Amino acid sequence: MKPIVLSAPMPRSLDLIFRSDKRKQLHETYEVVETTDDALATLPIEMLQQAHYILGQPPISETTLAQMVQLKAVLNVESNLINNMPYQTLFERGIHVLTTGAVFAKPVAELGLGLALDLARGITDADLAFRNGTEQWGGDGNVNARMLGGSEIGIVGYGDLGRALRRILRGFDPTIRVYDPWLPPSMLKEDGVIPTDLNAVLTQSDTLFVVAAVTSDNQHFIDAKAFKNMRQGCHFILLSRAEVVDFDAMIDAVRSGHIRATSDVFPQEPLPMDHPVRDLKGFIRSPHRAGALDTAFQQMGDMVLEDMALMDGGLVPMRCKRAERETVQRMRSKPVTHN
Amino acid sequence: MKPIVLSAPMPRSLDLIFRSDKRKQLHETYEVVETTDDALATLPIEMLQQAHYILGQPPISETTLAQMVQLKAVLNVESNLINNMPYQTLFERGIHVLTTGAVFAKPVAELGLGLALDLARGITDADLAFRNGTEQWGGDGNVNARMLGGSEIGIVGYGDLGRALRRILRGFDPTIRVYDPWLPPSMLKEDGVIPTDLNAVLTQSDTLFVVAAVTSDNQHFIDAKAFKNMRQGCHFILLSRAEVVDFDAMIDAVRSGHIRATSDVFPQEPLPMDHPVRDLKGFIRSPHRAGALDTAFQQMGDMVLEDMALMDGGLVPMRCKRAERETVQRMRSKPVTHN
Amino acid sequence: MKPIVLSAPMPRSLDLIFRSDKRKQLHETYEVVETTDDALATLPIEMLQQAHYILGQPPISETTLAQMVQLKAVLNVESNLINNMPYQTLFERGIHVLTTGAVFAKPVAELGLGLALDLARGITDADLAFRNGTEQWGGDGNVNARMLGGSEIGIVGYGDLGRALRRILRGFDPTIRVYDPWLPPSMLKEDGVIPTDLNAVLTQSDTLFVVAAVTSDNQHFIDAKAFKNMRQGCHFILLSRAEVVDFDAMIDAVRSGHIRATSDVFPQEPLPMDHPVRDLKGFIRSPHRAGALDTAFQQMGDMVLEDMALMDGGLVPMRCKRAERETVQRMRSKPVTHN
Amino acid sequence: MKPIVLSAPMPRSLDLIFRSDKRKQLHETYEVVETTDDALATLPIEMLQQAHYILGQPPISETTLAQMVQLKAVLNVESNLINNMPYQTLFERGIHVLTTGAVFAKPVAELGLGLALDLARGITDADLAFRNGTEQWGGDGNVNARMLGGSEIGIVGYGDLGRALRRILRGFDPTIRVYDPWLPPSMLKEDGVIPTDLNAVLTQSDTLFVVAAVTSDNQHFIDAKAFKNMRQGCHFILLSRAEVVDFDAMIDAVRSGHIRATSDVFPQEPLPMDHPVRDLKGFIRSPHRAGALDTAFQQMGDMVLEDMALMDGGLVPMRCKRAERETVQRMRSKPVTHN
Repeated sequence: MKPIVLSAPMPRSLDLIFRSDKRKQLHETYEVVETTDDALATLPIEMLQQAHYILGQPPISETTLAQMVQLKAVLNVESNLINNMPYQTLFERGIHVLTTGAVFAKPVAELGLGLALDLARGITDADLAFRNGTEQWGGDGNVNARMLGGSEIGIVGYGDLGRALRRILRGFDPTIRVYDPWLPPSMLKEDGVIPTDLNAVLTQSDTLFVVAAVTSDNQHFIDAKAFKNMRQGCHFILLSRAEVVDFDAMIDAVRSGHIRATSDVFPQEPLPMDHPVRDLKGFIRSPHRAGALDTAFQQMGDMVLEDMALMDGGLVPMRCKRAERETVQRMRSKPVTHN
Repeated sequence: MKPIVLSAPMPRSLDLIFRSDKRKQLHETYEVVETTDDALATLPIEMLQQAHYILGQPPISETTLAQMVQLKAVLNVESNLINNMPYQTLFERGIHVLTTGAVFAKPVAELGLGLALDLARGITDADLAFRNGTEQWGGDGNVNARMLGGSEIGIVGYGDLGRALRRILRGFDPTIRVYDPWLPPSMLKEDGVIPTDLNAVLTQSDTLFVVAAVTSDNQHFIDAKAFKNMRQGCHFILLSRAEVVDFDAMIDAVRSGHIRATSDVFPQEPLPMDHPVRDLKGFIRSPHRAGALDTAFQQMGDMVLEDMALMDGGLVPMRCKRAERETVQRMRSKPVTHN
Repeated sequence: MKPIVLSAPMPRSLDLIFRSDKRKQLHETYEVVETTDDALATLPIEMLQQAHYILGQPPISETTLAQMVQLKAVLNVESNLINNMPYQTLFERGIHVLTTGAVFAKPVAELGLGLALDLARGITDADLAFRNGTEQWGGDGNVNARMLGGSEIGIVGYGDLGRALRRILRGFDPTIRVYDPWLPPSMLKEDGVIPTDLNAVLTQSDTLFVVAAVTSDNQHFIDAKAFKNMRQGCHFILLSRAEVVDFDAMIDAVRSGHIRATSDVFPQEPLPMDHPVRDLKGFIRSPHRAGALDTAFQQMGDMVLEDMALMDGGLVPMRCKRAERETVQRMRSKPVTHN
Repeated sequence: MKPIVLSAPMPRSLDLIFRSDKRKQLHETYEVVETTDDALATLPIEMLQQAHYILGQPPISETTLAQMVQLKAVLNVESNLINNMPYQTLFERGIHVLTTGAVFAKPVAELGLGLALDLARGITDADLAFRNGTEQWGGDGNVNARMLGGSEIGIVGYGDLGRALRRILRGFDPTIRVYDPWLPPSMLKEDGVIPTDLNAVLTQSDTLFVVAAVTSDNQHFIDAKAFKNMRQGCHFILLSRAEVVDFDAMIDAVRSGHIRATSDVFPQEPLPMDHPVRDLKGFIRSPHRAGALDTAFQQMGDMVLEDMALMDGGLVPMRCKRAERETVQRMRSKPVTHN
């Protein structure tokens, strides 16, 4: 008898997250019960009793959880944690709550580097000027151009995305300072970056990547004062969530010419037609496209299969990220409703 | 008595290529005679006899050369070799002809990567759409998006620029194939790239960088047939000189949707207002700005000082690139007239 | 009032694991109660109630544990887990059991590489011959010499030590195959190594590092058959624990000339004077010295302080390794009784 | 008609330097005339007139050279340059003098690292003690042990061998200082090492590699004063030639306990039986075995074929190292007479 997987991966779907060969492997190895957020609790009790895994992030009551006596893990493929299940009980019972957000690290980092190089070299503006016949040739067009190579780079938040950024930046031989209060300094040093406090990363960066998840502690922590402390001409790149930044203060800092900036995330998505960033000079806009590549979604399925295989063998899941007792309640990055 | 340097660095100037401290060092170490292309031959014969170095690429006659009995090197800071001096005699006498084009390798590579990421992720087009209120959010905007990470990359020409590209690409763990008939395959392998013939690099690349200098052998060698052989959807990035490519064939290949492309160089610079690439869809335009950064020009001065110091000590110049007897006459990349 | 740390780090001591500045920091931040394995349970109940951390691996009864109502972590600085505390209760309560064995990864890896190079080039034997006047000069002495560069290397077990080995091996551009059934293959691939099964790593390695911890599943799993399957002339390097290997079978394989080998660990330590490896030709002996460097011990203190600081702030310990519910009972590497 | 290669590669032989497939390629592409140092000048004049390449380092007179009107290169596969041909004429005519010593860089670097790890961890001495039953277990045996990781390393001479050392050292994250007066500092910086003067590299190194070739300028330049200036406990590793060191001063520095050392090269080879290094404590001996691996010799053939192919096509040889007009007369590393 195959272990049961209760599947409710919305807004993802099994087709989105599994390549056909992996989808086949899933069904060969497990009894997959496709259900929904609402229907999960109404499944036959024998099915709940036999369930080893939940794929998705459906609401779970204490009662339903108590029925799932063999549950080993909730595999949340949306990947932002919401407060819709009794985490305390899950942790006591040793049921892993796993997220697959790491799949977005590489695509977001690549877009982030592309945006940084666009700010450094004025790629978008030069192309527009060229289309309009107002381009400037050679050095004349490079008054504001600068190199990433050998420059001072700051990274705020050093999870999977911060690490992916560092990896694709290493060929530039930069000095990288990192602010991440959830990590011990020595781990950052081992990764070849300089652990630093928030003020230092704000004031000593030519280019500043903000990739911190939203938590109960850090909403709007990059505020007007923070922007003011940045170097004149700092290139500011926001890749995680708009909520960590005072967005209006950022707009002011760009408009005043103090910094140049780019963002993949916005306070509202979609953004109103009359929002001031739409025609903000010195700002490059990306409509929350950094992570949502098909290949990224398909890695979710790969990760889920690898970790279920380990847990099937009585081992610890290693591929997905585990929600932690200490921090699960602090997470505030909003789930997406659209892939 | 200080060794004499005859300086005629046009279109560069001493101010452009020396930071103030290095300019000071230059004058402290050498007697710098500022002259021009035309005036060089008219300098007092004692001055010519004492000259150790020429800084620039002035025309030199056999007669003038014969007078410069202590000449050790011509340091060409424009860096494209033109046929205006008796190279054969220079080589026989062991006078080095040195170029400083390596200073452009890093800035051009950085822009090249920025353009590649723009093609891969549609950065410029997405920003434009966003300004116009027609942006597509999340995965909807990523239909053509793809990763550089883990992809197959081709590089045509593996001089300083090709090497600089490889260095900043290594964090992406790509497969890199290189075509460079002037280099032994084993040297390419040692650098972690796959030596290959022209056809393989054309047909097996997701992204193709053309960074070959123009020579008597390779004008327009990327022709209609070459574009046809490229993978459907290939991203084509031209960074060296327009002359290595059949530009019209490239435009056709982009227009037909077979490839997407970008170029920093054009058949005429500046380009006529009605040139078809100005509104070519699937094409990103950069007005020959890849290398012309102040910091690059200033490295020319650094390189010149380092190599003159070695030659002052009776040693071999190592920093600049030497023109070679076998190939000096084959070089066809046009000098710039504007920095 | 400072949080209480109950300290019973035997066989380590506070002096061994804390540099003086860190020792000072420890006492400034915490109330350190120095106790012993036996005395812990007899401490005043108010002290137990106030204890936030235990430093060491003393036996803990359910009763004592119940009294330690504020306990956040047991920081085991010996680092091999023994079954002397109610792990199930610790995990239910979310009390971390942390080990600091990662400090040994780098020193063990360095010795491991030194031993591998000794096998590859016959360093020890050549020095001995030279002392005796029987050395062979030049290529005559290199009949069995070989390169690590570009060779095929196997690693059995890919924890901190396996990763440290890969890091110092990367300059050799080797092909590295890894067998570690506790890790998902994609994580190994991301690290640039080839995940493989046990048979492949045994049969396809020029040099084979065994760095797996002893578990209930793998005692003596490198047995006579495994040695027979290795390549003729394989260099076998044992760095973790003698128990994972059938030591007699290894000796036979060396004696027969099938492999050459080296080990830092032995079935008995100290080893009897008449043990056959003492004069085994083709074998290099290291008396369990790979990890025990002062600098390694001092990093234990650093790690402990960093993780306590995170836990003091309500965060998750990241520096030490956590014992896991699934695997804590499987660990069989014997603790050392001597530093 | 195939181009003629005059072959006199002593002490190498064609069998030593060509794998069978490459040997076949050689004969398919070229007319190989096997001759000797003495017989070369007596070859039929038509043969000399047709010769494109000389493989080896035979004595060449001006007269013979004048007859070889098509000569493109002398490919010296012994690789130490001796003063037995009219270099000035060769350079005037643009005939390349090429050496293949780069093949030894990797094997010498690997042995060098092995010796450095032996000094750092006492591998040879511990194995000897273990054989004798006097081994010390665990930390007791590590009183003098230290890590290469994170340490300060000096390299004297930064040719192919210095670069190869840096490559295999990079996984150790060391600080590397380099002294090489023939190289511009900026090239060293680009390679990630710190350019420095001789005094700094002597006084600031925990481990010091001497890999400089002997020149007219540097004989015995590591003298008693230099050894005195080294850090107490410095590990000194000599890999190039004994002549760059005052060997007696080195022995004194080891004997006094000021440094520990190892060498692959000696003032006389073979070394007299009563030479004091034979029983010098704190010294590891290697009988000039560092480079002489079959695989290294076979790369000579590969290099020669690659460069001849380039020259056949009218291009510049890139794979071998060119003798230079400025420095060819300064070289003093003695050729070997035995492979």
